[in-house]
Amino acid sequence: MKVSVIGLGKAGLPLATVIADSGINVTGIDIDSKRCELINSGTNPIKEEPGLQELIKKHGGKNLFATSEYNNAEDCGIFIVIVPLFLDENNNTDFSSLKSVFTNIGHILKKGDIIVLETSVPPMTTETLVKNWLEEGSNLKLGDFYLANSPERIMTGSSISRLREFPKVIGGVDKESGQKAYDVYKLFIPNLHLVSSAKVAEFIKIIEGCYRDNNIALANELYKISNELGLDFFEAREWANHDYCDIHLPSTGAGGHCIPLYPWFLIKEMEKKGKNLDVKLLRTSREINDEMIEFWAKKIIQEGDKLKKPNSKVKVCINGISYRKGVKEVYHSRNLALTKLLADKGVDVFVYDELFTKDEVLKLGLKWGNPEEADLLFEPFKLVLRVSNHDS
Amino acid sequence: MKVSVIGLGKAGLPLATVIADSGINVTGIDIDSKRCELINSGTNPIKEEPGLQELIKKHGGKNLFATSEYNNAEDCGIFIVIVPLFLDENNNTDFSSLKSVFTNIGHILKKGDIIVLETSVPPMTTETLVKNWLEEGSNLKLGDFYLANSPERIMTGSSISRLREFPKVIGGVDKESGQKAYDVYKLFIPNLHLVSSAKVAEFIKIIEGCYRDNNIALANELYKISNELGLDFFEAREWANHDYCDIHLPSTGAGGHCIPLYPWFLIKEMEKKGKNLDVKLLRTSREINDEMIEFWAKKIIQEGDKLKKPNSKVKVCINGISYRKGVKEVYHSRNLALTKLLADKGVDVFVYDELFTKDEVLKLGLKWGNPEEADLLFEPFKLVLRVSNHDS
Repeated sequence: MKVSVIGLGKAGLPLATVIADSGINVTGIDIDSKRCELINSGTNPIKEEPGLQELIKKHGGKNLFATSEYNNAEDCGIFIVIVPLFLDENNNTDFSSLKSVFTNIGHILKKGDIIVLETSVPPMTTETLVKNWLEEGSNLKLGDFYLANSPERIMTGSSISRLREFPKVIGGVDKESGQKAYDVYKLFIPNLHLVSSAKVAEFIKIIEGCYRDNNIALANELYKISNELGLDFFEAREWANHDYCDIHLPSTGAGGHCIPLYPWFLIKEMEKKGKNLDVKLLRTSREINDEMIEFWAKKIIQEGDKLKKPNSKVKVCINGISYRKGVKEVYHSRNLALTKLLADKGVDVFVYDELFTKDEVLKLGLKWGNPEEADLLFEPFKLVLRVSNHDS
Repeated sequence: MKVSVIGLGKAGLPLATVIADSGINVTGIDIDSKRCELINSGTNPIKEEPGLQELIKKHGGKNLFATSEYNNAEDCGIFIVIVPLFLDENNNTDFSSLKSVFTNIGHILKKGDIIVLETSVPPMTTETLVKNWLEEGSNLKLGDFYLANSPERIMTGSSISRLREFPKVIGGVDKESGQKAYDVYKLFIPNLHLVSSAKVAEFIKIIEGCYRDNNIALANELYKISNELGLDFFEAREWANHDYCDIHLPSTGAGGHCIPLYPWFLIKEMEKKGKNLDVKLLRTSREINDEMIEFWAKKIIQEGDKLKKPNSKVKVCINGISYRKGVKEVYHSRNLALTKLLADKGVDVFVYDELFTKDEVLKLGLKWGNPEEADLLFEPFKLVLRVSNHDS
């Protein structure tokens, strides 16, 4: 048995190495051929992932062979797809990358092959779109091949341990698909559960993200209220939380490839059915989290007003540009969005982030600078806004 | 030292007995003189509270003396207020009962007395309204007396253990008040924490309720979405939940004296400040939970349509009228509201509840009947809707 993992990014690469480490031969496919070369030479491209370095050194170019050519995976019997998905400007899912991947798999698909989608997708995607792309690409029919969904549950920084310990679900588009995919996955995922369908598996991941988005929005709303009432939110939160209460931490919003996308999967699906009112909490949560940058921009500008300088001369440093602390990723980063919003409002704002070089920051269209050069320093991961040391 | 507990209801009576059981002499005050007689004769009026019977038998009429006369509490040095609070038809807090209680306490207040409010109230109520009522009623000034807030955290059915184990906070309107109230409370509340102010103490209880209301609303919204997509919500929830995800259970809404009130405390306070947009999540959650009876009414009527009878001849039984299973209380009960809604829609609906007699149900303006007489049976605490046995 050989397994192909399509997508060697922050989610796919840890999975591919864990499979390789279980003794299974893996062909990893990624459009980035330079990344493939790195992996095959035993070099880890995701520095912030503990444990990954060792696995890539051990298996890269050996049990895990990375390539950009689907033909190199012709001898694989299992295809696992774990590529990122994006929303377009109207928050509709852009399926183009998934379609291309499954069409390519279709071209090399054989009878008896098993395909598992790990990318988090809108409900029913596996049993409708994915099935159709595979059938069209291969001239085979479901039943000739088996199709399942097992949403990735990794989190950059603890992906390897998540794969080895965290509960993971898998569900087939039909019963046989579910069972066959489960039997294979069980070889490398210890904490695996077979659920009744692919769409339930998809839904499990989506509602987990909706829970997070909603509870982050609640924390943000309660934080704004605390501010207005002159209360210490963090003191209140400490004693409000207990076994039956888990108020989350406030923030500049929710970013990355997961949380900001999943509510839209459900909002758009329900809106298609004319059920707009049945997703109003998900929509409100999305709005609140995306609007938090307005709250912080206002706070920063108000703080700037207190300094004895013309507003446009106040230098503001945003200390952290990634969407989450310790992860080098800016997709839907609210800290990046906050920086751009402040610049749009005429603030002299620049960025510092220990994960990014000056050049990388400049390429994002932002100014770069050292925190020490700022009049006001905003640390988004601590929600601390203070006059910089050089002034105090 | 003698303690007076004002309000001997589902929250106050367990507290009064726990204080009495710690060896302190308690004068309980309640407007219901019959209830006072029962307590003094050692009879427990709250059957659904484990452990309360023993405490009342032991202390009722002895270490705990219940009365309707404030004058009987003249010799007390500590006054604890724990009476229910209501919203008016516009969801504004009706403070009339609290005002009356604190004015009455004012009349017997002496220098050095400590007053603690346990009723959950809108933020700043203790330091503004309560302080003023006491000062006006007593002709004393804060500093002559001490004032604090320690929100009750009981839950009917586990109130005694909550008082003895659960974390409880207390905060003063000034530093001295907080410390003095803390020192007294520590004599009978083992897991007690002094927080920085009365308003933080108030806020802690409010945001705990907001967390519950919001997460119940999320569960309800996800439940409706599951229904629309033909998915088993409960299967998905089982595997979505883990250490970092706690999707709640769906329901007919949120009832009782706590959860439905607290979001309004914040909504109304913020709206007064023109900050309507900063409470939109709380408001949306309230709407969703209150509207759930529309969802269930529709489902019940749709199920009735499947029976071979004219719609007005379909007998529907709502099996459970209280706001929560096992608690004899209908304040803001959504099951009661659902029953009335169905009746308004012309459905032949009646109620059965093991906690209520036929007469008690009739007095609520509802029809009473046995579940066996129904064509359709709805069990709101299980969310089970089924054709009744006599038909199957």
